[in-house]
This record gives sequence, structure tokens and C-alpha cells, in this order.
Amino acid sequence: MTKCRPVFQLDNTLVRIAADENIPLVDSFFSEFGEIRRLNGRSLTADQLADTDILLVRSVTAVDETLLKGTPVKFVGTATIGTDHIDLDYLQRANIGFASAPGCNAQAVVDYVLSSLSVLIDVRGVSFADLSVGIVGVGNVGLCLRRRLEEMGVDVVATDPFKDPAVVGPLTSLEEVLKADVVSLHTPLVNDGECPTRHLMGAEQLLQMKQNACLINSSRGAVVNNAELLAHLRSHNDFEAILDVWEKEPHLDLALMHRCMLATPHIAGYSLDGKMRGTEMIYQAVCEYFGLPMRRKLGQFLPEPGIRRVNFSDQVPLNQALRTAIRAAYEVRVDDGKMRSAMSRAEDVKQTFDQLRRDYPLRRDIPTMKVGVPAKCVDLQQLLASAGFAVRTK
Amino acid sequence: MTKCRPVFQLDNTLVRIAADENIPLVDSFFSEFGEIRRLNGRSLTADQLADTDILLVRSVTAVDETLLKGTPVKFVGTATIGTDHIDLDYLQRANIGFASAPGCNAQAVVDYVLSSLSVLIDVRGVSFADLSVGIVGVGNVGLCLRRRLEEMGVDVVATDPFKDPAVVGPLTSLEEVLKADVVSLHTPLVNDGECPTRHLMGAEQLLQMKQNACLINSSRGAVVNNAELLAHLRSHNDFEAILDVWEKEPHLDLALMHRCMLATPHIAGYSLDGKMRGTEMIYQAVCEYFGLPMRRKLGQFLPEPGIRRVNFSDQVPLNQALRTAIRAAYEVRVDDGKMRSAMSRAEDVKQTFDQLRRDYPLRRDIPTMKVGVPAKCVDLQQLLASAGFAVRTK
Ligand SMILES: NC(=O)c1ccc[n+]([C@@H]2O[C@H](COP(=O)([O-])OP(=O)(O)OC[C@H]3O[C@@H](n4cnc5c(N)ncnc54)[C@H](O)[C@@H]3O)[C@@H](O)[C@H]2O)c1
Ligand SMILES: NC(=O)c1ccc[n+]([C@@H]2O[C@H](COP(=O)([O-])OP(=O)(O)OC[C@H]3O[C@@H](n4cnc5c(N)ncnc54)[C@H](O)[C@@H]3O)[C@@H](O)[C@H]2O)c1
Repeated sequence: MTKCRPVFQLDNTLVRIAADENIPLVDSFFSEFGEIRRLNGRSLTADQLADTDILLVRSVTAVDETLLKGTPVKFVGTATIGTDHIDLDYLQRANIGFASAPGCNAQAVVDYVLSSLSVLIDVRGVSFADLSVGIVGVGNVGLCLRRRLEEMGVDVVATDPFKDPAVVGPLTSLEEVLKADVVSLHTPLVNDGECPTRHLMGAEQLLQMKQNACLINSSRGAVVNNAELLAHLRSHNDFEAILDVWEKEPHLDLALMHRCMLATPHIAGYSLDGKMRGTEMIYQAVCEYFGLPMRRKLGQFLPEPGIRRVNFSDQVPLNQALRTAIRAAYEVRVDDGKMRSAMSRAEDVKQTFDQLRRDYPLRRDIPTMKVGVPAKCVDLQQLLASAGFAVRTK
Repeated sequence: MTKCRPVFQLDNTLVRIAADENIPLVDSFFSEFGEIRRLNGRSLTADQLADTDILLVRSVTAVDETLLKGTPVKFVGTATIGTDHIDLDYLQRANIGFASAPGCNAQAVVDYVLSSLSVLIDVRGVSFADLSVGIVGVGNVGLCLRRRLEEMGVDVVATDPFKDPAVVGPLTSLEEVLKADVVSLHTPLVNDGECPTRHLMGAEQLLQMKQNACLINSSRGAVVNNAELLAHLRSHNDFEAILDVWEKEPHLDLALMHRCMLATPHIAGYSLDGKMRGTEMIYQAVCEYFGLPMRRKLGQFLPEPGIRRVNFSDQVPLNQALRTAIRAAYEVRVDDGKMRSAMSRAEDVKQTFDQLRRDYPLRRDIPTMKVGVPAKCVDLQQLLASAGFAVRTK
């Protein structure tokens, strides 16, 4: 968690909290601290913060001197992994505490990749164990993905110039990673410096990949040169692309969308669990910052998932069980279908893209789904547990 | 069941049964009647039937005078819906009893269509209730499909020149049926007579369909003029075809396969339950024919399905539950992927087609899958029950 050192202790008066109305579970986590006001994060002004000690925002609120100067705000939490909307320098200068929620939706993105891979193996008529996967960027998402795939018995190679192999496992060069059957991108968008990631994947890198490889991008659109990707797809019939993020989002090259195996509107990380974990993470940061006891845990508040449990018998082939469980938890083709259908009717691509994101029915993470497996089916138990499911034996 | 009148009663000696080695459950059903020999149905000769009273075959065995003359065979059962391989006239002349198993795999074909429709609605971003479905041929399969879809709230129109609306529900003309969003074919292949079905669907009929309609053929390949279908698909971008059967099977026009939304190798009817029901149906016919008590029921012998049960909570949207349950039971895209993948590597298309069919892992019918639904979710219970699932409430 990015945060400044505590410089302020709460006295015995109640704290005044202002929170974006679209952050879930704020009442559940924060009500014991004091009074909570829910505000529209898009139109927030300094006036509204005259009586606020703690401000909780999402990425729609720009938090800077203009918003905070003259207010009593002592802590800002953003329930998001990104901090582009926050003037961190100002917060530090003004001695205002801060926390974000890095990694809160990593599991959701991993689910997205697993569901996509399950589609790919069907289309190709192969199984998970037949694939090698290259991971570019072994941060919160990339590392979680790596661990899951490795436990599932998939061959993984990874690259990350900033990570320590002792922490994230063996690393190699981008060149080596590009030789895998599937390459999945999990870097931030970095425009300059030593290792920029803008257009990390262009014509040259795509040509280094296998003829029938598959590129998955759920990081940031511009990490891939979209025009060069489309050209590559056009000249390589067996090459596949799965895109959740687009270079000029919310604008979209429909020709590229049509040629993608799966196309979704930047929703890989959109799970209810991820959003709620974001709230929990800023709650924990607030407790730590102000030296308050952490009495609440996310587990107390999570609603029941739509699919309570899937019970397998000893008659089910391993791969069928895995595929069924993954897609019962999350079926990426539903999102793909909705986007194609909406785009085929769209008058305004940008507006349609934003609307698909706004109307997205938050899904649940794979670990919320219980799967029942007979006690004797040890392989199946291990496989489903390694994919993240809550395995129950009997 | 097609059968002749009984002309023969078993005396107290044990009956001698010869059965194709690939018919399942023969021992379970027939062992109390006498001695059972399992034979290779492809290479069966009259010699092997010198001591046979009852002969049980599949479609690979031609049953005619050459095979039966001079043998003591008194009854022939074929565990198939078709009887093309049987010389029915000869059996009648020779006073040999006969039974086939019409409709034994109707449920499997209905599952195939439901799974296909669930894919179509994802691709289109709509839901079941948004579709109208036209059914051509309201026999065993068509009627079962009609009932299921109607219970699910789908608009159905149907045509069948030989059926009585009092029995199979309202019927209309082919022209009317062609106006539906989806047209699903369920006629036999009939080459002549008043209502031939060879090339029932050609350029002219396809042009009568909606621009973005979907044609499903799981009946017989030549009911659709495949060349004209491909031409139509090429000139109508939004038109979709889902084909399980092909005009020159086991030969296949790969260009047509590539342009199909789903393509499978004549496996719509391939379920374990269907095959076993076929054995039960000839067992019942044998009992009736020889005046024996029916002591055995299929339910006693069916193995447990791979997916025992899927439990939903009250948090699941209706459509998501339906789609998840259907595809947990049968995911047609897996078969589609296997066929495309096998064909892309195939040296010999015909051989590959036959091999895909031979190696097919028999699936289970939707009604073998239990789904748990909270007592208060009455709509969900009804929806899943109408799709054929074994609904349990709690
Ligand atoms: N599609 C979605 O809905 C969604 C959801 C969550 C995250 N994301 C995006 O996914 C990406 C990863 O998210 P995260 O939470 O894991 O971020 P993170 O910051 O935890 O990890 C990013 C990793 O990329 C590495 N990296 C930086 N430059 C690199 C380079 N040139 N080559 C290889 N590795 C490089 C970093 O060292 C770091 O380990 C981010 O771009 C994030 O915005 C998208
Ligand atoms: N793909 C598979 O694996 C698979 C499995 C089972 C059945 N089938 C095929 O599906 C078809 C239907 O099977 P079924 O068991 O329901 O057969 P069925 O004989 O019970 O029904 C066929 C129906 O088609 C009707 N019909 C005949 N000519 C027609 C015409 N010109 N227009 C409209 N209707 C007409 C008949 O009156 C009958 O009601 C058959 O061709 C069968 O071989 C395929």
C-alpha cells in the first residue's frame, strides 16, 4: 500500500468521512468510526469537504490542491489500483495520509485470463497442459497468474526488468517469453524511462511469436501497437488476439475487434470481490494510519455468489471439470458477445464502450465458488484447487 | 416401436442371444433370459448365428436374407433409430420379430440444439426469450425440442406435413417457419414422394429467411443444399449456420465448415443415456414379443453423471443460471473445437470425420444433471425444469 507516515492521531471526537457513492461496503467497514456522507465523485468540490476528515474516492475524482486546500481532510483513500488521479506530491507536502488498493482486482484479471485460455483450448481442441504461457510483467496480476498456472501444470516463462526472481520466480528475456504459445501482458503503461512499455508489442515482436500463438492484453491498450497488431493478424491466419484494452479507449478499431478471438470493454478486473477488497484495503490503511483496531473483515460482508456449489462425481474427466468450473464462475464469451452485439448497433463507439463498462454486472471471483469432489479423486481436487476454487471433499 | 406380431413363444430352454459388442448394457438387461455372446457387428456372418435366437445389432450390420437364412434367429433388435440397414420385408416374410429404438436419442439432439442456441445468444448478446425458433419436422426430436423451448418461453413455429396438430401442437407452412430467427431441421432424408426433403433448404428458402437468421441442421446433411448454403453465407455476412450433419458425410466441404458458427461431426445424438435407452427399448420389445415380464429398468443401470449437481443461490440472474447449467451439461463448442482442430491437421477428411465419431466420449443428457435452487426462487426453478434439468429445491 502506498502511504505516508502517520502524523496525526484522532482525538475522541467522531471522524467525518466523505465517500464516493459508488464505493461498496463503505458503511459496513467505516460506520464505527463516525459519520459517513456519500457524494457524487464526478462533481466533488472543496466546499463539500469543509467538514471532512477522511476522503474516499474512485478514479473519477481528481484529488489535488484545488480540491483539498482549506479543508480539514487528513487522509485520502482511493479504492483503485491506479493513482493517476491523485496528486501524490501535494498530499505529501500537505501531510495528508494516503492509501490506494494495489492488487485488489488481480484475481479478477486472472479469472479473465483463465476463462480466455479455456476458450482457446476448446477452439484448438487441446488441453491446459498442452499450452506454454509467457507472462510480461510479474506484478500483482502477473504474479497471481503465474502461481495459478504453474500449480495447474502449465509451462510458464516470465519477464520483468524490475523484479527479483527470488521473490517472483525465474525470469527471462522478453525474446524468450515471446516464444510461448500464449503471451499475456501485465505491465503498466510507461511512456518513457529505461523500459517504456508503450508499443512494447509491435510488428517486430509479433513476428518473433509463433505463427499460431495467441496474444492476450488485459493491461493497458497502448502496450500493444494496435495498428501493427491488426496488420499482423491479417497476414497470419492462425495468430489469435484476445483484447480487453484498446489503444485509443474508449475509441475502438472495429476491424481489430472483428478479427480478435475475444474482445471485451476493459472489464477484466471488474469483479464484486475486487471492488469490495478495494474498500477493505483502504479500511485497513485507515486503521493502521490512525492506530485503530481492525475489527472488520471482508469475509463478513461478501454476499453469497450466484453459483453456490458445483458437485462433481468420479465420472468426470479432469479437463471437463476444470473447464466447466471456470466457465460457471466466469464465461468471457458472454462479455465478448455483448460487446460485439452492442458495437454492431452502435452509433457512437466511445459512448457504447463507456456504457458497456458502466452497466457491467459485477461478477464474482473464482475462489468464491465451491466445488465438491469425491474424496478419492485427488487429482481433480488438486487441479480445481490450483485453479483457485474452494474445493470441498466428501 | 416398429415390430411384427409375436408368432413364437419361448419354451423353457434358455434363449441364445448374439449381440454387437458395442451395444451397452446388454448383459444388464438380457442376462436373465439366457446366454449372451458378444460379436463384432462389422464382420458378422450367418455361420456365427447358427445357435442364435435373438440378434441385437447396430447400424453397422446389414440384416437380410444372406445373414439370417438357415439360422434359428427369431427376433432382431437394432439399438438405433434408423432401420436403413435392415431388410424389413425379409423379416416379415420370414416371420422374424423386429424392434428398433425410435427416439432413443431425441433428448441428446435437443441438448445439442439448446447448447447451440445458448452460444448463439451469447454471440448476439441477447437472451433465450428474445429468439423465435422455427422447427421443420415434428417427430421424436422436433416434438421434444418444441416442448422444451415452449416451456422455456421461446416463441416456436413448426411445420410437418404428416403430423396432426392435435398431437404435436399448431403447425404452419414452411414459408412461415422460415421467418423465425432460428430454423432447426428435424426431418428424415426423403428422396422422393410428395414431400421429399432432399435439398429442402436451398438458395430460394435461404433467401426467405431473415438476413441475420441462423440455420441449424442436425437431421441429415442432404436436407440442406450445402453448396447453396455456402454461397448464401458468403453473400450474407450476418447469416449463421450450425451444422452437425453434412451433405457428403463423411466427406466435408472445409470452406463450409470454416464459415459455420458451429461445426460438429454428426454427434448431436451421441449420448450415453441415448445409447442405453436404445438397449432398454429393444429389451422392452423382446419382453413384449415373447410375453416375458419386464423386470429391468434403465434407471437401475445408469452410471452417475460427471457433474452431480450445481447449486445456485438467489443471487444468480436467470439467464446466467440457465446458460451455466446447459453448458455444464453439454458444451457444444468443445466438439466444435475438436473438429476444427482435427480437420486443420487432417490428411484424409473422411477418415478424420469417422474417427472423431468413433472416438466420441459419450456425454450425458441434461435431465441427468441435478440443479439446486432456493425454495423462494420459483422462476428459476421453472426455467431450469423447463430446460429439462432435475431441479431440487431447498
Ligand atoms: N483490464 C483490467 O480491467 C485491469 C485490471 C487490473 C489491472 N490492469 C492493468 O494490468 C496491468 C498490471 O496490473 P498490476 O496490478 O499487476 O500492476 P503492478 O504494478 O502490480 O505490476 C506491473 C508489473 O509490470 C512490470 N513492468 C514494468 N515495466 C515492464 C517492462 N517493460 N517489461 C516487463 N515488465 C514490466 C513491473 O515491474 C511490475 O512488476 C496494469 O497496466 C494495470 O493497469 C487492468
Ligand atoms: N445428428 C444426429 O446425431 C441425429 C440423432 C438423431 C436423429 N437424427 C436425425 O434427425 C431427424 C429427425 O429424427 P427423429 O427421430 O425425430 O425422426 P422422426 O421420424 O421421429 O421425425 C421426423 C419428422 O419429420 C417429418 N417430416 C417428413 N418429411 C417432412 C417434410 N418435408 N417437412 C417437414 N416435416 C417432415 C415427419 O413427419 C416426422 O414427424 C432424422 O433425420 C434423424 O436421422 C440425427
